[in-house]
Amino acid sequence: MSDYIEKEPEKHDRGLVMVLTGDGKGKTTSALGQALRAIGHGSKVYMIQFMKGRKYGEVIAAEKHLPGLIVEQFGLDSFVMRDNPAPVDIELAQKGLKRATEIIASNAYDMVILDEINVAIDFKLVSLDEVLNLIKNKPSELNLILTGRYAPPEIVEIADMVSEVKEIKHHYASGIKGRAGIEF
Amino acid sequence: MSDYIEKEPEKHDRGLVMVLTGDGKGKTTSALGQALRAIGHGSKVYMIQFMKGRKYGEVIAAEKHLPGLIVEQFGLDSFVMRDNPAPVDIELAQKGLKRATEIIASNAYDMVILDEINVAIDFKLVSLDEVLNLIKNKPSELNLILTGRYAPPEIVEIADMVSEVKEIKHHYASGIKGRAGIEF
Repeated sequence: MSDYIEKEPEKHDRGLVMVLTGDGKGKTTSALGQALRAIGHGSKVYMIQFMKGRKYGEVIAAEKHLPGLIVEQFGLDSFVMRDNPAPVDIELAQKGLKRATEIIASNAYDMVILDEINVAIDFKLVSLDEVLNLIKNKPSELNLILTGRYAPPEIVEIADMVSEVKEIKHHYASGIKGRAGIEF
Repeated sequence: MSDYIEKEPEKHDRGLVMVLTGDGKGKTTSALGQALRAIGHGSKVYMIQFMKGRKYGEVIAAEKHLPGLIVEQFGLDSFVMRDNPAPVDIELAQKGLKRATEIIASNAYDMVILDEINVAIDFKLVSLDEVLNLIKNKPSELNLILTGRYAPPEIVEIADMVSEVKEIKHHYASGIKGRAGIEF
């Protein structure tokens, strides 16, 4: 099996732009699993979480166990109101986008994940045009993952891979609340 | 933020049965991300991969970095033919189900993932009734995740959470082949 163990991550002329959208559970976790898989092959991964400030399990696990994964949060531990975001929500998302731009331009990572960026666009915390520019100007080899419901058609259009995670049923509906290790 | 750092994983009287199905990319990776999140909160996770034998990135990453995650494979590094599975494919899947039964009964894990089990059922490598029994008899607190396209309605029915990952577009369609760190 040693054929599959790469000392250096595979480099391809064209990295992939992958989008995980839809209303179902499994978008951020899918990006995280993709990160874990890539790390197994020696990749370095940077995840920027928009609109999240709670110390999610992945933040703790990355700090503790995975030198190849950095998770940085740009948000508060409270919900952003879609029609009335607080100035601090906008400010933090803007900072996140600035950091994303730096991290992508640095070319120091094999995979960059912009978690909940689609929602940040939809909520008008960041502009669609800026995100489109970020995608179009990424280093060619970089794998870029964008998550969050409401992926704009312009991003779907230029992506290589798009999955829509549809909610068939959710335990919230039976009164089960968000749980550590499951929702965060 | 230390409020969120649990020394012991949260225990609930009723763990969740979660299903990730559909034809899109992001089911196994979503389960892996869920594992990573749970590990951050101190959970122990056991993933059994059916119909897979290739040394996926997650297998390497788990061995190298994550003492809280065991990934065990019960399959070959070749595709199983749906209408004509080899005896060895059936034998390995049966062994996987036996191991799953032991692991679940041991009550030593907070989360168990049966990766591609839905496909193993659809391909008739394992019986639906046996898997239903496994789910119904699991320790109450255990979180159980079942992945793979073709989730049978009987499993969807008894699950707490079901997400369908739909393929909107895939890079395979533009001639890009499976890549280390992306597909395996």
